[in-house]
Amino acid sequence: MSRGRTVWMATGNRHKYGEARQVLSELGVDLRLLEVERVEVQADDPAEIAAFSLEQIAEAEDRPVVVEDAGLFIDRYAGFPGPYSSYVLRTLSLEGMLRLMEGVEDRAASFRSAVAFRDGDERRCFRGVVLGRIARRIRGTGGFGYDPIFIPDEGDGRTFGEMTGEEKNAISHRARVFRSLGEWLTSA
Amino acid sequence: MSRGRTVWMATGNRHKYGEARQVLSELGVDLRLLEVERVEVQADDPAEIAAFSLEQIAEAEDRPVVVEDAGLFIDRYAGFPGPYSSYVLRTLSLEGMLRLMEGVEDRAASFRSAVAFRDGDERRCFRGVVLGRIARRIRGTGGFGYDPIFIPDEGDGRTFGEMTGEEKNAISHRARVFRSLGEWLTSA
Repeated sequence: MSRGRTVWMATGNRHKYGEARQVLSELGVDLRLLEVERVEVQADDPAEIAAFSLEQIAEAEDRPVVVEDAGLFIDRYAGFPGPYSSYVLRTLSLEGMLRLMEGVEDRAASFRSAVAFRDGDERRCFRGVVLGRIARRIRGTGGFGYDPIFIPDEGDGRTFGEMTGEEKNAISHRARVFRSLGEWLTSA
Repeated sequence: MSRGRTVWMATGNRHKYGEARQVLSELGVDLRLLEVERVEVQADDPAEIAAFSLEQIAEAEDRPVVVEDAGLFIDRYAGFPGPYSSYVLRTLSLEGMLRLMEGVEDRAASFRSAVAFRDGDERRCFRGVVLGRIARRIRGTGGFGYDPIFIPDEGDGRTFGEMTGEEKNAISHRARVFRSLGEWLTSA
């Protein structure tokens, strides 16, 4: 089959778009921004949210479109804030998150991403995960969202917020999920 | 116009249904349970979530149906947990909420409810609010959800969890919103 090398991403988050675009460009896929209002359903699984959003996008009827949903999942709190990570960041802020983790020994957490892809009648879902832990204080100004309090297991102890974009993109959940998409797109 | 005295409520929460049914029965309206899967969208306003859910319910095409959405809104945290109250209770639990409020002087909060009603082509939205504050510890076993940590301003210092169902229904957000609905239904 023939797969397009141009894909549209429906998102209002320029950080996410920038990270995804970088990963896909290395695989020869051109990612473009589709500026549409995105409907997000309440669900525990990012894959379900992404798939639901994609079905609501009329523009996906005549071009390849992806929707990503992602979140920070903290083991100690049954995955909170998970799919509501952006809302929780906007209301509790990083300080509130650190307050929840005060004196908590189990600091394990993961960033999880799911990408729903649609091209005509074809639909695919990809996932990316990075394991790590919650830092004891805010460190670094890079990245966005929870990056300054997330320390990936595969790193050298720095938070995502203390890494360059290239360093984060080497191991992040988002880079992984978009690399899977890109490899699938270009393997036809 | 002629309005039906029987209304179906789409909810998976028996506590909410029980409270609403009690209020409406006092006004001569018979509330019945409609057991359907309810789609909840992510939004800051319960009215938006309730209205969206209602539009997804096919059964609403041939009978009067209501959907309620409600949440606890904490001033100090920009309304958190708001529309995600049930998810947050399931993950953070009441202990996590109290941890967020440790040492916090501004304990003001409100329970907010919105009900979307649909009967044929007619659509209405009602709202109910009760102001109060977050208790310093869990008190009482009545009610459900956040009731054991919410002290309504109009009460005598007890939490909703320390009140009887009748006492809570005299002042609660849910009783208010369903009383508004019931009064409108029976005023035709």
